[in-house]
Amino acid sequence: MSVTTKNPICIDSLKMLGDFWTMMIIDKLSDGPLRFRDLEQKVNGVNTATLTNRLKNMVAVGMIERRELSRADVTYHLTPLGEKALPVLDAVSEFSSAAKNILPENHST
Amino acid sequence: MSVTTKNPICIDSLKMLGDFWTMMIIDKLSDGPLRFRDLEQKVNGVNTATLTNRLKNMVAVGMIERRELSRADVTYHLTPLGEKALPVLDAVSEFSSAAKNILPENHST
Repeated sequence: MSVTTKNPICIDSLKMLGDFWTMMIIDKLSDGPLRFRDLEQKVNGVNTATLTNRLKNMVAVGMIERRELSRADVTYHLTPLGEKALPVLDAVSEFSSAAKNILPENHST
Repeated sequence: MSVTTKNPICIDSLKMLGDFWTMMIIDKLSDGPLRFRDLEQKVNGVNTATLTNRLKNMVAVGMIERRELSRADVTYHLTPLGEKALPVLDAVSEFSSAAKNILPENHST
């Protein structure tokens, strides 16, 4: 009854990508590098501690790079590995089209 | 610098699918319907309250269906909408291949 040719799911990758804030950060950085403050503004509703935590993890696994030109000029960039997560966002967008008008507007997760 | 033809991300769908346990449940149900206890065994590390919460949310948005043949015989099934989330899992698997040997073994999320 399997509906796709399924690969065994990789828990580590799912732990990394199965996270709302991580995916939001990837989405925002896909348009180009951003400073922490800009990211904080663009990622609606994130708090400073959560953003700091996610960026740290994403740097640790090599999905983003932190470039410090000076103490006041630090930017975050998607790495080639980080860009490989973009198809996950595309698949979420595809799902959205199907789910339109089906998902209740204020469902809780 | 955008690397894909990007659709605006749908926050509601990302809230639903950007969740480790929800995606684990979808993965397990993709092989066919399961009872609660079977799901609890297959979704490694999930606790009863979390599994109950995720199943309830997934039923509410129409991604899975709860079929109660008798009080002792309740199964959970992926709906056609739920199956539309499978490409997200496929994209995570693709990412895993790229991330192999890159992700540290015990990174924290």
